[in-house]
Order: sequence, then C-alpha cells, then structure tokens
Amino acid sequence: MRDHFEIRDADAAGRIGRLEVPRADQTVETPALMPVINPNRLTIEPARLEAEFGVEILITNSYIIRETESLREQAEDEGLHEMLRFDGAIMTDSGSFQLSEYSDVEVTTEEIIEFQHAIGSDIGTPVDIPTPPDVSREQATEELATTQQALADAEGIDVGEMLLNAPVQGSTYPDLREAAGDHAAATDLNVFPIGAVVPLMNGYRYDDMVEVVAAAKRGLGVDCPVHLFGAGHPMMLALAVALGCDLFDSAAYALYARDDRYLTVAGTQQLDDLDYFPCSCPICSEQTPADLQSKDEDTRTRLLAEHNLHVTFEEIRRIKQAIRSGNLLELVERRARGHPAMYDGYRALLDHADQLEAEDPVSKGSFFHTSAESARRPEVLRHHKRLDRLAVPAQLLLTEGGAPDGDEYDDAWRVVPPFGPFPRELSDSYPFTATVPDRPDRAGQVAAADGVRVLVEANPDTKFTLAVDDWPADALSRVPDRVTVESLAAIHDDAD
Amino acid sequence: MRDHFEIRDADAAGRIGRLEVPRADQTVETPALMPVINPNRLTIEPARLEAEFGVEILITNSYIIRETESLREQAEDEGLHEMLRFDGAIMTDSGSFQLSEYSDVEVTTEEIIEFQHAIGSDIGTPVDIPTPPDVSREQATEELATTQQALADAEGIDVGEMLLNAPVQGSTYPDLREAAGDHAAATDLNVFPIGAVVPLMNGYRYDDMVEVVAAAKRGLGVDCPVHLFGAGHPMMLALAVALGCDLFDSAAYALYARDDRYLTVAGTQQLDDLDYFPCSCPICSEQTPADLQSKDEDTRTRLLAEHNLHVTFEEIRRIKQAIRSGNLLELVERRARGHPAMYDGYRALLDHADQLEAEDPVSKGSFFHTSAESARRPEVLRHHKRLDRLAVPAQLLLTEGGAPDGDEYDDAWRVVPPFGPFPRELSDSYPFTATVPDRPDRAGQVAAADGVRVLVEANPDTKFTLAVDDWPADALSRVPDRVTVESLAAIHDDAD
Repeated sequence: MRDHFEIRDADAAGRIGRLEVPRADQTVETPALMPVINPNRLTIEPARLEAEFGVEILITNSYIIRETESLREQAEDEGLHEMLRFDGAIMTDSGSFQLSEYSDVEVTTEEIIEFQHAIGSDIGTPVDIPTPPDVSREQATEELATTQQALADAEGIDVGEMLLNAPVQGSTYPDLREAAGDHAAATDLNVFPIGAVVPLMNGYRYDDMVEVVAAAKRGLGVDCPVHLFGAGHPMMLALAVALGCDLFDSAAYALYARDDRYLTVAGTQQLDDLDYFPCSCPICSEQTPADLQSKDEDTRTRLLAEHNLHVTFEEIRRIKQAIRSGNLLELVERRARGHPAMYDGYRALLDHADQLEAEDPVSKGSFFHTSAESARRPEVLRHHKRLDRLAVPAQLLLTEGGAPDGDEYDDAWRVVPPFGPFPRELSDSYPFTATVPDRPDRAGQVAAADGVRVLVEANPDTKFTLAVDDWPADALSRVPDRVTVESLAAIHDDAD
Repeated sequence: MRDHFEIRDADAAGRIGRLEVPRADQTVETPALMPVINPNRLTIEPARLEAEFGVEILITNSYIIRETESLREQAEDEGLHEMLRFDGAIMTDSGSFQLSEYSDVEVTTEEIIEFQHAIGSDIGTPVDIPTPPDVSREQATEELATTQQALADAEGIDVGEMLLNAPVQGSTYPDLREAAGDHAAATDLNVFPIGAVVPLMNGYRYDDMVEVVAAAKRGLGVDCPVHLFGAGHPMMLALAVALGCDLFDSAAYALYARDDRYLTVAGTQQLDDLDYFPCSCPICSEQTPADLQSKDEDTRTRLLAEHNLHVTFEEIRRIKQAIRSGNLLELVERRARGHPAMYDGYRALLDHADQLEAEDPVSKGSFFHTSAESARRPEVLRHHKRLDRLAVPAQLLLTEGGAPDGDEYDDAWRVVPPFGPFPRELSDSYPFTATVPDRPDRAGQVAAADGVRVLVEANPDTKFTLAVDDWPADALSRVPDRVTVESLAAIHDDAD
C-alpha cells in the first residue's frame, strides 16, 4: 500500500479509496472530482462548493496566480485557503498546460514548487511537458525524458507535508505510457496525473483514451492514486473509474455554462435546444429551460454551472454506489450507449479484460447480461482461464436444460451463456448467479461455445455431450468436432 | 385525429400529445404520469404534487370512495376536486382491479360511471375484467366479451363533459389484444387503457409486455391516447412510450417508499443497500442515505416518495426531450442496459421495427449507432425497403472508403454500416448523417451486407463491386456471389 492512499473497495479496476492530504488535515474519498477554480473568476464560491456540493478537494493554477501580481501578493500574504475561502484540500497545477498552449513558460520546477509550497498548496505539481497525441515517437520520447527530469527535480525539493504530483506522459504510445507509469511509481512522489488526454476527449477518441490509460495503469500498478488530468465530463467518468482512475477535475462545469452548454451523462446539450430538463437537481426541478433562457447572463451562467456540477457529482455518487454494489461494469455498459464514441471506449476497455480481471473481485453483486459486450467481461474470461482446473469424469454431459437421456453420463454440468459449462455445485457462486436474458444472445452463445472448447481441449480423455437450445452456426462451429451435440429444442419438440 | 387528443410531435411510435379534458377545463401534455392517490392515505398532498412536481392529472379509485361511507359522503357533498384539493384533471378507476383481486365487486358499469360523474370525475372508467396473462384462450375470449359489453354499456350513459376510458384486454393473446384495440377504437369512448399488464411487469416479462402493447396498438391505431395501466416505474417508461403509450400511473412512488424502496431508471434499490444517492433531486442532494435512514418512519416514507416522484418525472421530461430531439430510440437503447429483462424488452420492440417504421418520422436528429441492436432499428429497415426505388447505372461501385481503382465504374456509392449502400447525394440526409462507431461492429456489417443484397437482387442487370474493410465471414456470406468483393484493408496495406 502506497503512503497517503488506501483502497477500501474495488470493482473491475475501479476503487473507492482514501487519499490522505496531511497539509490540509483532510482525507479525501475517491473517486473524487476536483472543481477547477479560476482565481480570476469564481463562478461558484468555493465555500458554496464545500457546503452545498460536498466538495472535499479543488484544483487551481499556481502559474496564473504567480503571474498575476494582485493574486500573487494576496496568496503569499494570506495563503491559498484564506484567499479562496476553502477549508478542504487544494491541489495546484504548475503552468504545464500554459506551456503546452503557448510554449513559453518561464518557470522551473524548483521555482514553481517552492511557490506552491509558499502559498499553502496541499498538492503541488512540477513543470512537466504535456505531449499531445499522435506526435512522432522521437518527440514523445524526448519530452518524456524532460518530464522525468522534472519529477527528479521535484523529488529533491523539501516540501514538508505538501504532496506532489508525478505526471505520466508519453503521447499515444502505449509502451511509453507504461514505462512512464513505471518510472513515476518508482519515485517518492504521491499522486499520479495521466496527462495530455484532453485532445483525445475533445476528439471523442474514447477508445484511444482507454489505450493510454490502460498502458499508464500497467506501469503504475494498483497502489498509486491516479488523476485523469482534464477529465470531468459525467459521460465518461464511469469508464475512467473502471480503468482505475481516482481523481478528476472539471473546468467544464463553468466553461460550458458560459457557453450555455448543459451537461448530461449522455453528452452535452445546448440550452437553446432543450424544451424540458432531463434532470431533477435543485436547479432543474424548479425551473424550465424557458425560465432559464430568460435570465440575465450572469444568473444563467451561475445556474447552469450549478446544474453542471450537480449532474457531475450525482454521477460520482452513482459510481461509488456501483463499486459498493459490485456493478460498476453494468454502469459502464449503460454509459457506453450514450454516444458511439463511448461504445468504442467500452469495447476498448473490454480488449483489456485480462488487465481488469487481475484486480476484479472474485465475488460481487449479480452479473447482468445486457448486451453482446457483456460476453467479453472479465468474469467470463476468468472462468475460461480456470476451466482447466476443474476435475471432470469420463463421460460428461454439458446442458442448457435437461438431459437428452439421463443415465449414460457420469455427471451433468450446466451450460449458461456467456459463461459456458460449470459444475452444478457452483450455481450459487458468482458469476453463475448472473441474471441473463430470456431471449438468446448470439454473442453469449459464442462465448459459451468458447468455454466448451476450453474445457474439452483441457480434458482429452473425457467423452463430452453438449445439449443446447438453438445455437447459431458460428457458435456451434467453435465446439470441437469430437463433442456430441444434441439439440434441446428438438427434444422439446418431441415432447410436444 | 380523435376528439380530445392531438399529436404534436413524434419519434418511433412515441409522441408528445395534448389530451383535452373538458370537464377539468385542462389540457394535459402527454406522455404524462398520473400519481395514484389513495383517498384513505395521502402520502404527498395533491396540492403539493401540483405546485412542486407540476402534476396536471392524477388518478384515484371511485370504488374505494363509494365503499367508504365517510369518503363517499364527502365526495358527493364537495366533489372530488375539493375533497382532494386538486385543480388539475382527475381520472377515476372503477373497481376492476378490486374485481380481479377479490372477484366480488358488486357494482355495474352504469352504477359506477354514474357515481364517478356525480362526484366530479373528469375521466371515468367502466367495470372491465382485467384478464391476467397466460390464462386459457377460452377464458380470455369470454372475459373480453364481458369487457366489450361494459364498453357498450358505458357508451349508452349520458356523462356530459366527462371523458370515458375504454379498457383493452385479451390476456397474452396478441390477436385478442389487437381485436380488442380495434373494437375499443370503434367506440365513442375517449381514452384507451391497456389493462392487466402489471403481472407481466412484476415478473420482469418486458418482452411479453411489448408483445401485448404492440398488438393492442395495431388494433387501436395511431390516433387513440393510450394508457398503460399500472405502469409507472421509471425504468420502463421510455420503452413504453416508444411503443406509443401516452399515459402512465404510479402507485409505486408511495407504495415502494413505505417499503424503503428507492426508484432509479436502472431498477429499484433498497434504501438499506445504499451508501450514496445516485440522484441529485432536492431530497438526494441535501442528505445521505444514512441521514434518511435515521429519520422517523413517516418522514422517511414521505421523503422517499418525493424522491421516487422526482426521478419518475425527470424521466418523463427526458423522454419528452428525446422525442423533441428525435432520439427516443437512443434513450430506449440506454435503458435496455438497466436489466437483462429490459434488454429482452428492447429486442422485442425491434422485432416490431416494421410497426415502428410506419410512424417513425423520415427525418429527425442524428442516428447514434451504439450497439448490435442499433442495426435493427426502423431506419435501417426503411432504407432496405426503399433500396429498390433507387436508379443504378450499369457498373456500380459500393465502397466503405476509396475506390480500388477509380475509372471502371459509372458511379460510386457509399457503404456505411448498419445501413449498407446509398448514393453519395444522400449523405446529408437522415439517417445517413448517423454517428457511427470507429471500431467495426459485426451486427452493423451484417445489416449493411443485407442492404447490399437487397440492392443487388433488385438490379439484376448491374455489375456490382463491393469494397469493404475487414468484414466478418458471416457478413460477406450474405452478399450475392455475383458481386466482386474487394478488400480496402488490402489496398491500405499495399499503400503502406
């Protein structure tokens, strides 16, 4: 277990954790969303964020404060907490984003971290280089070396109780991201932002985002608290948590509000396009879109920002509840239908079912089979991996229903798509307690056939009979030829 | 257009309508959810339902009022609106439900309708027989005849401005439900409850519910306002609206609350199982589950009932917005992932894509392809039906990308899963403006191959070339043999 971070509950690669922030004398429960505070423009006062939205941690930009004389003087004089009137934990960014946008940030890691420490930040950040997606491998490698030097510089500074971020870069090269994660985890730094994924999210490249995060996580390992830097849209939080991200930040709630954009878990809407509010937060249950459109700009922006935060924190709570209930992947499954890019993201996640399986609890809430993708979940993979450990007799019937005729087998196992065959005595164990659809699901039948094949190949001396309802040809073609296949549908027809 | 009901907007078979209720001097916007008021126990005062939840119509039980002396006297004396302190429209049930539960209701249609009229009901109900699912065909037929006699009796009564319900029964026999719908629509009655579906919903038989409703709708036709009697769980409202249901009723909000059950759009939770509220309604954003658990029973029940109503009306607004935006099926798609039984229900709905297609607007918001099921939507079916109307040249290239070589074809059409081939000039027309996933979707490719087959079979004299990225064998096997198939993946490889 890493210092300052404790994992309390887990589902898929997601977790509920406790991040101890000693300088703030706070423990932050993760997954947590940090509202981004623009010190020049407070859309919602931090004290209200704390009181009304339960915000335990926020993030602001030390570079902007340092470059703005009045803010710098106030921050140095009063400290950040007094200046923002916020008692929770405060993370500060370093200006790396400004570096990536304007490429002329004149500050060293040492200078900015000392400044962050001086103004009372609880979690500081070195000056890393947020290498964008799709650059040349040379550029990604070179800039990663600079970022890693910044981490080394940061390690050498005495920051007292302040925690430090160790950003993970590497552009869209999974091996660089993995190596960067591995390197960052080996430092003494505390929190691990995965950087420069914003262009992927802005481009709706959620599958590429999954590849980047999965790679970084392979390097970081389970113990590190991970911040998906720049990610805060409620649409993608469940997917990111399922990959093992713990911290998020949202500037969107305020920036989008200024643009009359309204967040939902299925995407963003323009206020002008809404006739009804698909939400019951205190803002949306008390007025109609027409009411809101008629307000002056400042009021409208503030109320939209409040809605945007409500819907985002609602999703964070929903995610935490899903982890507690052991149905986080069911939530990801639902969110995957919000946009074709989220569907791609979910399928990319399932490409890493092996990586999820390593962390996914062996037993949790009931498995819901609700799509073709359910057949690719880590629970199915795990069962197929373990099939060769099960003892089988000389003559074994595998059946979706009854026995074609009952007495010529030594034993009869159940076959349930998408899992495939399992001994009856496992029926009460997860995931075989699954709730599955009544209607046949082709992908589930294909996965079940794969399970049959694994079992048959592991037991060359056993004679297998498989009794199934109408399976499609592409499921049956995966069953080894030496298996006798019987149709239960034909048996039912005979009985009629 | 039927008297008292006007359709203003439509998507799939769902619609936003206006039900004129002359006796209440009200126009109710549909889809509408009617809270069920138990006159013996008001969990939330009707005046609060009106003021805080925007309730325009509610439903109460005239039989209970008639059988309870104090209520009967008060209702006869003051009238229902005064008694309940509610200015909106009031629908009254007749005691049919009590009949189905206790089979000894001693009241005729004439008596109960006259009573409903006398106490000031705005929409009354005859004494129909709610035949449960799965009874013998004989019982279903016989009881349907009794129900139809009740409709005839109701037609003969002078009820002034009061509207009347014409319940549609027929158990789980689609042909009986369709005939019952046809018969009911031919009466002069005004509102059309589809009855006795509660046992199907209680049994999570959403696919069977879809069959019953689709059959009743075939009989009723488009113009009738339809009430899905006893349906009010937010999980299934989008599915039912997509089938063409307009009115719902919820006793669940209060009954479930008494049982510490908490409604969500993905099912029901027990309050004790919640550590976080997956909601931001005024109840859930101001307290935690632990706070609520610590309240006294009456307060807890009232607050839970308020949450249950908030989440239900939120879903009604979300559904209306989806109809306005033309993405109701995208919402059904999301709700289908809430439970395997909803997945079955959605697939049953798609079995009736032809029925939906007849009403689905030709042009609406963007089509999102987010699952294997998206390939079975009515828009895909419609395109395939119309492919034979398109003029094709002698040599036609159908391509997912570029041309294998450019100059030997008279024209090149685009191929986009799940639609299949279409002329380039349709690219800006719905549904070809669809947002589709980047990653290949097998079901989409199979549907596109079906489109190719339809086009090829309609044009026996045209020479077709099909250029596709990696399609699976079961998609390619659907393409007629006489089509020359080229692989774009191979072309890309050559270019590397």
